[in-house]
Amino acid sequence: MSHLIDDTHDPARRSWVATAHGSEFPIQNLPLGVFSPPGGRPRGGVAIGDMILDLSLAARSGLLAGPAKLAAEAASGRELNALLGLGAGPRRALRRRLSELLTDRSPDRPEVETWLYPTARCELHLPCAIGDYTDFYAGIHHALNVGRQFRPDSPLLPNYKHVPIGYHGRASSVRVSGAAVRRPNGQRRAPDAEAPTFGPAQRLDLELELGVWIGPGNALGEPIAIGRAADHIAGLCLLNDWSARDLQAWEYQPLGPFLAKNFMTTVSPWIVTAEALAPFRTAQPARPAGDPRPLPYLWDETDQASGAFALELEVLIASEQMRRRGSPPHRLGRGPATNLYWTVAQMAAHHTSGGCDLRPGDLFGTGTISTPDEAGVGSLLELTRGGQRPVSLPTGETRTFLQDGDELILAGWARAEGYVPIGFGPCRGVVIPAAAPAPAAACAP
Amino acid sequence: MSHLIDDTHDPARRSWVATAHGSEFPIQNLPLGVFSPPGGRPRGGVAIGDMILDLSLAARSGLLAGPAKLAAEAASGRELNALLGLGAGPRRALRRRLSELLTDRSPDRPEVETWLYPTARCELHLPCAIGDYTDFYAGIHHALNVGRQFRPDSPLLPNYKHVPIGYHGRASSVRVSGAAVRRPNGQRRAPDAEAPTFGPAQRLDLELELGVWIGPGNALGEPIAIGRAADHIAGLCLLNDWSARDLQAWEYQPLGPFLAKNFMTTVSPWIVTAEALAPFRTAQPARPAGDPRPLPYLWDETDQASGAFALELEVLIASEQMRRRGSPPHRLGRGPATNLYWTVAQMAAHHTSGGCDLRPGDLFGTGTISTPDEAGVGSLLELTRGGQRPVSLPTGETRTFLQDGDELILAGWARAEGYVPIGFGPCRGVVIPAAAPAPAAACAP
Repeated sequence: MSHLIDDTHDPARRSWVATAHGSEFPIQNLPLGVFSPPGGRPRGGVAIGDMILDLSLAARSGLLAGPAKLAAEAASGRELNALLGLGAGPRRALRRRLSELLTDRSPDRPEVETWLYPTARCELHLPCAIGDYTDFYAGIHHALNVGRQFRPDSPLLPNYKHVPIGYHGRASSVRVSGAAVRRPNGQRRAPDAEAPTFGPAQRLDLELELGVWIGPGNALGEPIAIGRAADHIAGLCLLNDWSARDLQAWEYQPLGPFLAKNFMTTVSPWIVTAEALAPFRTAQPARPAGDPRPLPYLWDETDQASGAFALELEVLIASEQMRRRGSPPHRLGRGPATNLYWTVAQMAAHHTSGGCDLRPGDLFGTGTISTPDEAGVGSLLELTRGGQRPVSLPTGETRTFLQDGDELILAGWARAEGYVPIGFGPCRGVVIPAAAPAPAAACAP
Repeated sequence: MSHLIDDTHDPARRSWVATAHGSEFPIQNLPLGVFSPPGGRPRGGVAIGDMILDLSLAARSGLLAGPAKLAAEAASGRELNALLGLGAGPRRALRRRLSELLTDRSPDRPEVETWLYPTARCELHLPCAIGDYTDFYAGIHHALNVGRQFRPDSPLLPNYKHVPIGYHGRASSVRVSGAAVRRPNGQRRAPDAEAPTFGPAQRLDLELELGVWIGPGNALGEPIAIGRAADHIAGLCLLNDWSARDLQAWEYQPLGPFLAKNFMTTVSPWIVTAEALAPFRTAQPARPAGDPRPLPYLWDETDQASGAFALELEVLIASEQMRRRGSPPHRLGRGPATNLYWTVAQMAAHHTSGGCDLRPGDLFGTGTISTPDEAGVGSLLELTRGGQRPVSLPTGETRTFLQDGDELILAGWARAEGYVPIGFGPCRGVVIPAAAPAPAAACAP
């Protein structure tokens, strides 16, 4: 049901919004977000080409009715949690109606034109008030690449192929694309040092992930069955799980990453909906021979057949020098999202299997997505082999980890034979220098 | 400033509410919470004896003015986040004014009596919408007791005495005292087994902790200096970090506890404010000789002199059989909260030192608080030495871990020479049987 392909996906369909076709946001995409028009308050919107359609105006018009109107009303405020809580039905109805209104055959173009703002003149916000953010570790090649650096003989821990490993992240510090990324201060201990020191992180890294926006969710104590888990996935975005490797190495035993990750997480602004992604569903890659069969609560044939996504993901960097020179961003890697060992449905089923409740607008990160080779690794830790092999930029600069002034950009496209490709919009952040130490530290004895 | 002792702490002061004196909630306490009166909507309240004072009625009366009125207004809705965001000033003004209105010398008793409801007829709620919940690991004897079971020669990891170890918990599944605790299902692997199995947790445990309610908080990228951290601690509660030890052992590497903890966390309903706790401030216990001096961002002389709390904490159990027989709860342990290696100010300073933002109404757990001996350990894992030494109940029943039907009760009292003791109110939960496996599991191949 969630994967229904209908005429909103028809590749012949074109919008009267001239910039839509060929952009990341053609009429086949229609992603959901929250924006402020010039001088206006935040409200829900839909990206179409280089414009944003104002859902609060759509809700008040006479052109929507029934579930589509209900969905637009739920998207009229400063966050989309209520819309996501409605589930796929109203969201799909809204998509169908907007697709009709935006096609070049629509008789209602004059009225709908009054709902549009140029994206360049708007401010984009987080699409939801995030109740909880959970970060998984489902990119198996990332787990292998990182594991090999520490345990060459047994890079994967024994639980990896049984448990969709995840941990709780920090919701308060999730920011939308474009927000500056302040380098964190923190404790680290040099390999041979007796005592730790405190100061700016020296091994600042990115992590390329998909973000997963949760729909209706579940009551405490009532797990979501794997066969119904897709109903609770509202859509996807790109997510950069900025990481301070030197802080992480010192702090993470025995309870996992904390300050090494919680200084900031960046997401792309648009929720690319489960409906928009329907044509790009693909089979979960077959488990290598010898891998264990997942326990029944994690196993569903439909999910195995269509629970993965045909997405191509990219990491790009633009140093301050490159931006000054007007050089285009330099690609550090590109690879498919099918390098995830677990599907997002498996993540949701596992997360709730013990009774934990998910709420509308919750966010998952999938974990860093890397290719088995070096063409598309999702972190500098992997690309530079722990900082031992610097990468070169077009300016002649080199990088092991991120320097102040570096801009990181994640990009993603969904592609499938016979369908119009759709994009995610960028997930960007520029690294800015660490804060001065907190004032009292200077007064301490 | 936050630790100011004033005439609201005067031990001679008595309330005209007859049940206040000698209770957990004498006029010297005045803790903040959220309740629903019979047939009414949730709103802020203050406990006094066996009554609750309705802050929404107080806010609308003519008896409050200035910052006290502002505070009551901010506490008139279904959560206290806005009140906590105001910081200590308005909170203290409200305390002073309510203390005046509730003393046996108050001329306004007739009007104030109309603001009171019997607690027994009210429903208590979580006091805040919890943006993020962070669980620390600051109970050093717990860390030692648990560490010894796994690493007899080096029970503490090298970072423990440098870093206030913490990790992100799950905010969605925090519940107020009284909510049933459904035993989680989950994956575990028997010590000698090849593959894991899925089913009800067999080693369900409690963890006795203090909860810390956060006040104003900080902007992203702007750390809270240790010398100002106390300004951001609104108050304390009791917290039971229910834990499934068998799930935890299998899942927790490398990213920390996840489903073993996130099925439920219980807090006591009342925020015992920083103001109420002022007389019970005590010196942080001296670090044993040879322990490292904390880094400057974690070190403040005032905090060392008064950053700990003279609290006595208890764990009690009442099995279903005991409750049927009318036996009183059986005490499993009792000990002081000064068994924390880090102060709550150190936790807040550390949490924000990399830039992570705290928001009003955020919750910390301190980590399990245990005594060095067996008189007051805060978990069954410790008390039964990993399940090897059962404890006996008055009925002749024994326990290694919790059984369905068991009720766990945490209690806490602040005591100091020359002051009226104040209590926290109970933090209770009854264990109920695990959910049936999610339906799709049965259909899986």
